[in-house]
Amino acid sequence: MKSVVCHAAKDLRLEESPLPEPGPRQLRVRIAYGGICGSDLHYYQHGGFGTVRIRQALALGHEVSGVVDALGAEVTHLRPGQRIAISPSRPCGHCRFCQSGQHNHCLNMRFFGSAMPFPHIQGAFSEQVVIEAHQAHPIDPTLSLSLAALAEPLSVGLHAISRAGSVLGQQVLVTGCGPIGSLLIGALRRAGAGRIVAADIADLPLQCARQMGADETINLKSQADRIESYKLEKGQFDAVFEASGTEAALRLGLDLIRPRGILVSIGMGGDVSLPMTQLAAKEVDLRGTFRFHPEFATAVRFLNEGLIDGRPVITAVLPLNRALEAFDLAGDKSRSLKVQIAFSEETV
Amino acid sequence: MKSVVCHAAKDLRLEESPLPEPGPRQLRVRIAYGGICGSDLHYYQHGGFGTVRIRQALALGHEVSGVVDALGAEVTHLRPGQRIAISPSRPCGHCRFCQSGQHNHCLNMRFFGSAMPFPHIQGAFSEQVVIEAHQAHPIDPTLSLSLAALAEPLSVGLHAISRAGSVLGQQVLVTGCGPIGSLLIGALRRAGAGRIVAADIADLPLQCARQMGADETINLKSQADRIESYKLEKGQFDAVFEASGTEAALRLGLDLIRPRGILVSIGMGGDVSLPMTQLAAKEVDLRGTFRFHPEFATAVRFLNEGLIDGRPVITAVLPLNRALEAFDLAGDKSRSLKVQIAFSEETV
Amino acid sequence: MKSVVCHAAKDLRLEESPLPEPGPRQLRVRIAYGGICGSDLHYYQHGGFGTVRIRQALALGHEVSGVVDALGAEVTHLRPGQRIAISPSRPCGHCRFCQSGQHNHCLNMRFFGSAMPFPHIQGAFSEQVVIEAHQAHPIDPTLSLSLAALAEPLSVGLHAISRAGSVLGQQVLVTGCGPIGSLLIGALRRAGAGRIVAADIADLPLQCARQMGADETINLKSQADRIESYKLEKGQFDAVFEASGTEAALRLGLDLIRPRGILVSIGMGGDVSLPMTQLAAKEVDLRGTFRFHPEFATAVRFLNEGLIDGRPVITAVLPLNRALEAFDLAGDKSRSLKVQIAFSEETV
Amino acid sequence: MKSVVCHAAKDLRLEESPLPEPGPRQLRVRIAYGGICGSDLHYYQHGGFGTVRIRQALALGHEVSGVVDALGAEVTHLRPGQRIAISPSRPCGHCRFCQSGQHNHCLNMRFFGSAMPFPHIQGAFSEQVVIEAHQAHPIDPTLSLSLAALAEPLSVGLHAISRAGSVLGQQVLVTGCGPIGSLLIGALRRAGAGRIVAADIADLPLQCARQMGADETINLKSQADRIESYKLEKGQFDAVFEASGTEAALRLGLDLIRPRGILVSIGMGGDVSLPMTQLAAKEVDLRGTFRFHPEFATAVRFLNEGLIDGRPVITAVLPLNRALEAFDLAGDKSRSLKVQIAFSEETV
Repeated sequence: MKSVVCHAAKDLRLEESPLPEPGPRQLRVRIAYGGICGSDLHYYQHGGFGTVRIRQALALGHEVSGVVDALGAEVTHLRPGQRIAISPSRPCGHCRFCQSGQHNHCLNMRFFGSAMPFPHIQGAFSEQVVIEAHQAHPIDPTLSLSLAALAEPLSVGLHAISRAGSVLGQQVLVTGCGPIGSLLIGALRRAGAGRIVAADIADLPLQCARQMGADETINLKSQADRIESYKLEKGQFDAVFEASGTEAALRLGLDLIRPRGILVSIGMGGDVSLPMTQLAAKEVDLRGTFRFHPEFATAVRFLNEGLIDGRPVITAVLPLNRALEAFDLAGDKSRSLKVQIAFSEETV
Repeated sequence: MKSVVCHAAKDLRLEESPLPEPGPRQLRVRIAYGGICGSDLHYYQHGGFGTVRIRQALALGHEVSGVVDALGAEVTHLRPGQRIAISPSRPCGHCRFCQSGQHNHCLNMRFFGSAMPFPHIQGAFSEQVVIEAHQAHPIDPTLSLSLAALAEPLSVGLHAISRAGSVLGQQVLVTGCGPIGSLLIGALRRAGAGRIVAADIADLPLQCARQMGADETINLKSQADRIESYKLEKGQFDAVFEASGTEAALRLGLDLIRPRGILVSIGMGGDVSLPMTQLAAKEVDLRGTFRFHPEFATAVRFLNEGLIDGRPVITAVLPLNRALEAFDLAGDKSRSLKVQIAFSEETV
Repeated sequence: MKSVVCHAAKDLRLEESPLPEPGPRQLRVRIAYGGICGSDLHYYQHGGFGTVRIRQALALGHEVSGVVDALGAEVTHLRPGQRIAISPSRPCGHCRFCQSGQHNHCLNMRFFGSAMPFPHIQGAFSEQVVIEAHQAHPIDPTLSLSLAALAEPLSVGLHAISRAGSVLGQQVLVTGCGPIGSLLIGALRRAGAGRIVAADIADLPLQCARQMGADETINLKSQADRIESYKLEKGQFDAVFEASGTEAALRLGLDLIRPRGILVSIGMGGDVSLPMTQLAAKEVDLRGTFRFHPEFATAVRFLNEGLIDGRPVITAVLPLNRALEAFDLAGDKSRSLKVQIAFSEETV
Repeated sequence: MKSVVCHAAKDLRLEESPLPEPGPRQLRVRIAYGGICGSDLHYYQHGGFGTVRIRQALALGHEVSGVVDALGAEVTHLRPGQRIAISPSRPCGHCRFCQSGQHNHCLNMRFFGSAMPFPHIQGAFSEQVVIEAHQAHPIDPTLSLSLAALAEPLSVGLHAISRAGSVLGQQVLVTGCGPIGSLLIGALRRAGAGRIVAADIADLPLQCARQMGADETINLKSQADRIESYKLEKGQFDAVFEASGTEAALRLGLDLIRPRGILVSIGMGGDVSLPMTQLAAKEVDLRGTFRFHPEFATAVRFLNEGLIDGRPVITAVLPLNRALEAFDLAGDKSRSLKVQIAFSEETV
């Protein structure tokens, strides 16, 4: 069985490992598709991000779909051959955060493909993976396994919206229209946003943003003048979602948001200089967002029922034996949004 | 009639001006006490703050109390001789923010003693001032006019709490225990905070914080080790109120706050470098707060009924002819919290 | 100029009246379509509802669209010939509710076609009507004037959702699928509800509910058993919207809602017997909803952009000279959902 | 060891039973004081309430304090002789409500002295009781064990407030000023309510309400006219807490609450006729409240620190051998608010 394993920055290998056996409440899954996420890229390109560094071999990957292969003795609600989206999230259920419904802050979280704890939590970019039964979300016959692997990044977008509260009828700005920003736009349209403006510094993501439902797209390099009118009367956006992770976008958001508006920061950008006087005087509400929990089931529902269509986001699918090429492609923002690895021919 | 007028940085004068006459819905007030606020000090010491600069002579002052002197023809609910706290806030009532109940963001605000608009809005550090009838809040016979002049900074604290939502039973940190921070602590105690920790870099404000109701005080210079246990399990404070306006305090707040906690920024600190990855990963809610609106009436009520006692905050009261000395004293944080000017002997 | 005027229960007349002239900030509109609402029917059938009774001749109607005919001197942002949806809401802007953004509770509201105040506020079922400029909402060339007249009842649905807060991903029940309930379902789908169950006692509204986006429909007379599973584990619905105005539906909602769920009551049903022990023990949040304010602009936007399609709701359109027949048809729930009157041939 | 056991309506006995032994995570407590609650009275007087009936012998009682007697092997943070308030709440920690932080809705709750599940959950009116370690809350040396036994009903009041959200500065009405209503008033004062009006039909509870912090008390029988001014302009109270469990009080609350106000129903009153048209037109938010969870720790804190003083609520303390007399006394509202049983002479 092959896995995509990162040993250090720029040291990514396709490695053999033994087939794992599921425990009584677990199942084994043949992975179909795995999307390459920004954090996967960070491990590959830089060996980590911030204080999180790879200290032992780490199988990457947490955006995956697959087909049930073998069931543990106590798992009765699933069957072999079933097509599923897989949540990468395994909270403990016992800590004070789990007991208050904030499972994404679990003190003992085992999230696929993460170097935050040590020993690291191995990821799901393998031909077969053992998961807990609660991680499996059956998908509709009409939904492809490739699209099902978007459930995870879509969950991130849905959770970001839930952090903002209701956006029904609101005028919303999204800065940064990569895979997360673009899926977020699809989710905002579904969540009843009144008008969605998408901003980026490149045309490929803006094109995707429009396909996902943005009413207006603005290239901040070539069309910066079009942003001016949104500064009027202390700012025109009810909510801003910052998905680029840049200081410039965050500061722009503070300029354009109306007093008491909500600015959700999705992109992690390390240390950033912020104009606190402006934030205070406009009473901006700057909210962080991190992963998701109940939103994964919602994401699968929306994908299953065609209520959100993620197709514009996937720009390339490469077979497992070209996994390293897939990582390089995913790192090239001028050509790629979401790049997926196909782990098996038959499941495609 | 004398006023305290700022012409430029370090150029503060006691000037004569003619007695103003009230319009039909206005009244004239003999000012009793005026508290010197941080923004008054900024005008005096630096000629402004950020992009807000003094461009014409500006009477300072917005924390005032007084005695009704003359009534406009249409004002029937007040009488000469009545003792009042005076709200410095005059929103227009018509703009989109006033029509949505967010009067502190009024597009046409005329707030006493502000160089934000031009022509500037003159302040209330005068022997007599004309105000709108709605600015007058009668005070209880048991409340001194000196304490009544704390209604304004107390309102700032109450509004900061309302920005956070309910604090009932919560563990709360206040960083920066000057007059605003200390009055905020009194308001937090009254609002049902469960446990209040106060932090500052000097002992005088911490002593005041304890008198205002803090359960624990920490001198961040000499007792920094005592803060460590609050970092456990991703942070222990449900809410943090940052009133020092420093980057260090804001970063400390991000370390100590629990995931999904609310960090209210009261102190304006210009550009500040923030660890956005931490803010996102902990899903912190960083909220600005600015002035107040309905809270002024609440502040007067709490002072009237003795439900909040502001006496520990007032460290000096100087007569009008020593107004410049009062400003210098207010600027010396090692000796002063709130310094007030007494505008009249008889009203004391 | 003809108007549809109600003099008393069962006394509805087509009457002539002089052409009105717009004031400086007003405009005159040739009415295109008018939808018959439940309150119009109550005036016609019973002479009022509850304590609200017709005490003078009252032109009915508040769900209207039209074409601008003449402009007041100060109205510059509209032009003759423009096609508009018309908000029936005219709050005063000055009372304590308007000043807190709760214009639907205005103490001096002049809402079209209402016998609540005396003298009554005349309605808009006339060939021409004078409105305030702020009541006019231009519509898209692709939107028919008939569909534009749904903006008002759709606003009621959108406001009901805003009363509930975010419904993103939630499991929602709607009881009562007449025009309001069905448009609400369209709005819930747009607002990101995860799964929508519609319940009624008749098949025609349920058929409409499905077309508007319900995932499941339940006829409470013939399919009552299908509701049982939703009672499990203290109740399965995150939110319930009660649009039938019946005690039975409200009590059903309390059975099916999960603890801490939100039950929005749209249908007004007079005195109703409620199991308060159940409401308390499940900590249900029973919220009233009344009309709308900012939601009218949102409704027009969603109709303009095709984000909500109201066509299934309109079951009949009759010309003005058959207005009385239209009222009788609208009162027959077995044959009708929304019945509209076409006031002009040319505007159709 | 003696316990107060109810066998059926009017059949309450002092019975002997063997001393229980604590498990590894449990402790045995010598009970000091037990307050008689409305539900205890219902079991005694009527054999239950609504559909909840006594079907086997049930030791009553859930408002208790005591002294640690023996510790299970794994309990290390407590010591024999320690004085504690005892939470009666034992949620499972695993069901969907526990996992979302709503432990008071636990599907497998074992709450002291409850006939809801079968077998019934035995109560704490015994000389010695075994509890889970997490139920023990140490109290301050300055707090009497009698006052400590108020932590439970005070928690009910605190949770009712948390259901309403922030009450800071609000004008609040409390109807029904028995032990729950009066402790709620103390909690509202602590939570920063601006003005508290208390209403009841008897003078004894109103006298207590005033001692607990009400600004105004109204006897609804003898001073009904004083309520009229609160009906002006659609209602004057921001929040209403209904603790009498009567239809009349609930309807009064709907009359007096302002539009968009929050009416929390604490008193359980069986089926009640409500004016739904009024609830809808005023957009009232009628919220149930049930028991508590995190509020117990907060209640103990407020009692420990003297931030809420419950002494006015306790009107009688009787020794265990007069337990039946204590129940009769507690049932006489003209003479009693909270009646407590002293289980041991030494702990008094």
